[in-house]
Amino acid sequence: MTNKSAIFPGSFDPFTAGHKSVVERALPLFDKIIIAVGDNISKTTLLNLDKRIAIIKKVFAANPKIEVVSYSGLTVEFAKKNNCGFILRGLRTSADFEFERAIGQTNKLLNDEIETVFILTKPEHTFISSSIVRDVFKNNGDLTQFLPEGISRRDLE
Amino acid sequence: MTNKSAIFPGSFDPFTAGHKSVVERALPLFDKIIIAVGDNISKTTLLNLDKRIAIIKKVFAANPKIEVVSYSGLTVEFAKKNNCGFILRGLRTSADFEFERAIGQTNKLLNDEIETVFILTKPEHTFISSSIVRDVFKNNGDLTQFLPEGISRRDLE
Amino acid sequence: MTNKSAIFPGSFDPFTAGHKSVVERALPLFDKIIIAVGDNISKTTLLNLDKRIAIIKKVFAANPKIEVVSYSGLTVEFAKKNNCGFILRGLRTSADFEFERAIGQTNKLLNDEIETVFILTKPEHTFISSSIVRDVFKNNGDLTQFLPEGISRRDLE
Amino acid sequence: MTNKSAIFPGSFDPFTAGHKSVVERALPLFDKIIIAVGDNISKTTLLNLDKRIAIIKKVFAANPKIEVVSYSGLTVEFAKKNNCGFILRGLRTSADFEFERAIGQTNKLLNDEIETVFILTKPEHTFISSSIVRDVFKNNGDLTQFLPEGISRRDLE
Amino acid sequence: MTNKSAIFPGSFDPFTAGHKSVVERALPLFDKIIIAVGDNISKTTLLNLDKRIAIIKKVFAANPKIEVVSYSGLTVEFAKKNNCGFILRGLRTSADFEFERAIGQTNKLLNDEIETVFILTKPEHTFISSSIVRDVFKNNGDLTQFLPEGISRRDLE
Amino acid sequence: MTNKSAIFPGSFDPFTAGHKSVVERALPLFDKIIIAVGDNISKTTLLNLDKRIAIIKKVFAANPKIEVVSYSGLTVEFAKKNNCGFILRGLRTSADFEFERAIGQTNKLLNDEIETVFILTKPEHTFISSSIVRDVFKNNGDLTQFLPEGISRRDLE
Repeated sequence: MTNKSAIFPGSFDPFTAGHKSVVERALPLFDKIIIAVGDNISKTTLLNLDKRIAIIKKVFAANPKIEVVSYSGLTVEFAKKNNCGFILRGLRTSADFEFERAIGQTNKLLNDEIETVFILTKPEHTFISSSIVRDVFKNNGDLTQFLPEGISRRDLE
Repeated sequence: MTNKSAIFPGSFDPFTAGHKSVVERALPLFDKIIIAVGDNISKTTLLNLDKRIAIIKKVFAANPKIEVVSYSGLTVEFAKKNNCGFILRGLRTSADFEFERAIGQTNKLLNDEIETVFILTKPEHTFISSSIVRDVFKNNGDLTQFLPEGISRRDLE
Repeated sequence: MTNKSAIFPGSFDPFTAGHKSVVERALPLFDKIIIAVGDNISKTTLLNLDKRIAIIKKVFAANPKIEVVSYSGLTVEFAKKNNCGFILRGLRTSADFEFERAIGQTNKLLNDEIETVFILTKPEHTFISSSIVRDVFKNNGDLTQFLPEGISRRDLE
Repeated sequence: MTNKSAIFPGSFDPFTAGHKSVVERALPLFDKIIIAVGDNISKTTLLNLDKRIAIIKKVFAANPKIEVVSYSGLTVEFAKKNNCGFILRGLRTSADFEFERAIGQTNKLLNDEIETVFILTKPEHTFISSSIVRDVFKNNGDLTQFLPEGISRRDLE
Repeated sequence: MTNKSAIFPGSFDPFTAGHKSVVERALPLFDKIIIAVGDNISKTTLLNLDKRIAIIKKVFAANPKIEVVSYSGLTVEFAKKNNCGFILRGLRTSADFEFERAIGQTNKLLNDEIETVFILTKPEHTFISSSIVRDVFKNNGDLTQFLPEGISRRDLE
Repeated sequence: MTNKSAIFPGSFDPFTAGHKSVVERALPLFDKIIIAVGDNISKTTLLNLDKRIAIIKKVFAANPKIEVVSYSGLTVEFAKKNNCGFILRGLRTSADFEFERAIGQTNKLLNDEIETVFILTKPEHTFISSSIVRDVFKNNGDLTQFLPEGISRRDLE
């Protein structure tokens, strides 16, 4: 039996409406999706690890097929340890694509048995990145359409 | 039960080593992959429909999870009629990506229940397109590394 | 007094919901927008010139600031003859951009007094091009969200 | 009466010959252009805010249609407060474009009544960015063709 | 002794000011540059082969290091037959680059001993392609800055 | 006699298998290649300057046509001082290209007599950048295929 579990790795600083849509649309493809929140000490984040995880857990509270955990080290090592044969990623723009291809081909070189699978973001999410959300957040802009339903500015503070 | 069948649509004029690699690497994800060869009357092809299908059937002769058929009309209509919830596509370059994103988002608008899933081509296949293969073919170049194993210039003639 | 008229040149084969949105959003910037439908004999179109013009006239029937005409020859010559100091264009993707930049810089070289002004398409229109509309049309797909409100498949037939 | 004022926001660290050309060529389109120099405390700049503003004021000293001010917070908020219906931006490369599209569509989502208008840089300015000017400056290179006429290395020191 | 000859292949329909600049700037690098004009029967050109060759010969009449010839078949075969270890190409835009990379890597696969060498076009030539020149030509635009010095509309007629 | 020496400038933090391939393939073109390791005080590197130089010297120990030195200041100044008429760079992706074009055209503006020459990386090196190597290094991944033959993790520690 082939293992159809995937990890969805990222910083998720914060998790956006676009991330949520990618996970939901990829879900029929997999038995389980592990959302793997990168714990990178050398990277400064807006939200600390606990807050980033809490937000994602809140978003998918009702969905038993989704797990949310932190990880560090190589993504392919984490995938293997968790019995995941696939890495899931969303694609927004061609700049995105060039970056994702490099990461995807690197992961393939590091572990040939793990495949990266891509889903397009919806048109209305194409311009939404965590970096843009952080910028709108810092400047007190309205975050409603950038964050997943049920998540608000208060969850980020 | 979720239907994990996918169609892999294209002109396949001809089917390349890169196409083969995409199908094989996506196979663990799906119960079945239908390779759907576009029968587009208004498009001039190097190989006629029968030859294009014959080559792909030869490549996957030993694989019962793969079907090869021709189709015309909207890709999403064909996917639905065949009970496929997914469209599979390979991604090579960022020019590719821009094109595929437009097609993918159009298909999503035409049928929201069908998702397009992308797999990266391997680095050594990035530059191999059907159009380049046709060019090498016409100029009598060596096709060994462009075509799937077991397929040679003779199959194209 | 500076002349704030613009031409919006294109094949418009057919005029899409994205084209309409670009014109409407650019309208506050200009005193008049002339939609200039290219009459290029050597280019095969899905719709003949009359039909392409009729559709656009129907879309903007209630708007006295918009004119719809056909043109041939250099775009900058036509702009000058019509006293337009600006060329209006929409931008969808980075592939678009590379193409538009070449045309824009060529026009600037041909007539330094005419400036090209760009407006972004809306996210939900990013993937809509005339070429995709033609493809959906030929395959009998639903055109509702691709065409301007009030225009339907019947107008294209 | 439609308000045809625009803001031209940026860090302008420093203002380049390319920036100047974009403002001058967009000027016929607007009644007024407010050059809005971002005062972002968390961003380290080569030139302090006063120096960046002083340079731009020197460049446009003779032009009463141009104002130079500093701002912080959301760009669309600043535009609204200043009665500007338009945001002006220059486009150089396709990498630029992808970035500008994300910002532009974010601004549209935050305030649907403000439109972003783009002008192409001239071919000879395509490679000139503030970041390249800073690099040439630090390495004591000749800045003549990178800076607006009348501005020299001394203004940056 | 390494052979430092290069071929500069293309359709050159017509040869532009940008092509000329690339050849001249690459010349110090090579002992000889063979400008190889593609004789592709299945491709419709504005200028016939003789005219295309005549224009280039006129441009480089005074330069003994440059040869102008026609060729058909694989570019690497032609390079090898002419003892050229290098293929020279100009790079204008990132769309260009994606295309050139595919051709370059294909040529490398076909003959590992021939290397493709790229030179950037000058900023003021970035938007000049043969396709744009043909368009300006057909619409009777001024070709002075698009064509090499000494070549005029009359040479194309 | 034309000077056919080139510098190959970079941070080389660290030197990768891709860098090595570019140098080796460009070597037949030049009499000498000076690998110029940037000594940029304001940039934090994984490896200090001595270590970066030592690795490259080890790689090309047997090759008398290659020199390895450090440099600071403008690249064109360094090239001129060392009598090099050419700057050599590898091209991997279209994101790369946009960046390299800006640097190349800036260098051309600073010194018109020095030309930048580009070589494509091999397909299997396309995704290998120093930044990805640093990431794999920090996460204890296998570096064998990312580093030049003869260089291992130990050389980086």
